[in-house]
Amino acid sequence: MSTETVVRQVMSDAEAMATPFIKSLVALIRADDTYGVWEEKGDGDLLAEFIVTADERREIPIIGDPDPDLIDRVEKYYRAVGLAVERETGLMASPMMTMHYEGFGRVILTTGKLVIFSKSLRDVHRFGFDSLAALAAEGGKVVAKAMKEIETYPEVARA
Amino acid sequence: MSTETVVRQVMSDAEAMATPFIKSLVALIRADDTYGVWEEKGDGDLLAEFIVTADERREIPIIGDPDPDLIDRVEKYYRAVGLAVERETGLMASPMMTMHYEGFGRVILTTGKLVIFSKSLRDVHRFGFDSLAALAAEGGKVVAKAMKEIETYPEVARA
Repeated sequence: MSTETVVRQVMSDAEAMATPFIKSLVALIRADDTYGVWEEKGDGDLLAEFIVTADERREIPIIGDPDPDLIDRVEKYYRAVGLAVERETGLMASPMMTMHYEGFGRVILTTGKLVIFSKSLRDVHRFGFDSLAALAAEGGKVVAKAMKEIETYPEVARA
Repeated sequence: MSTETVVRQVMSDAEAMATPFIKSLVALIRADDTYGVWEEKGDGDLLAEFIVTADERREIPIIGDPDPDLIDRVEKYYRAVGLAVERETGLMASPMMTMHYEGFGRVILTTGKLVIFSKSLRDVHRFGFDSLAALAAEGGKVVAKAMKEIETYPEVARA
């Protein structure tokens, strides 16, 4: 929590919107808008569904299977990480996500034969970020981590 | 198809049953048998659901979503590959599988930070093998391929 507070203070909304991760996320959301329904909407509005404050999160029950919309959102988050990595490195980074019962699951991102990110998911019901800055910072961290793996094992990422 | 014919001729059922892949598959099936219902059943009987002849396969329509039992079987097949790799190398090999609509999907196996196997799945409806020997040979091929990746990038597999 304290890290997020710091982040919120150091990154403005405009700065957050300019990060490669957020730009990729917006691009993916707009790509889904086949009929141009959201054309008039600003990027901030499109990202609103990712913003869930700590208080709101606490209220969400973590029983039962998460909503398909929510799973879709988590998937989009990791696809945006992949797209940002791809734009920065020129290497395709594809996410793969499985959801089991009750909000548990796993996500991995691979580039070539390299696993550039792997995480167990839980409490997916409560997926969301305090602010745009927190979303940008957290997504950016995953992008940075993934890119570092590519740097460490460049030949495997290209295999 | 011609490869499978050759395989069938060169491997007896007893030889097939003795392969690390088939042994792992049987172990996984038995592990699911919490109540000992299949205790009296021979290993061959347990594997019968994996044997689908070419003629039988052709009869299966490939429309709609595949049966959950079938998806479970495909998953078990790749978990057996992972288990066989683990038994041979001492390294944990975990499969991850996603199924989309209409029998399309993807499976990958990872060890450490290495992708040791990756495949697009399609026509999952028709998943099955001509004979025990074909099942052993095909599964064995995947095991061999995965182990070769570990040999090529040992430090990534241990990362």
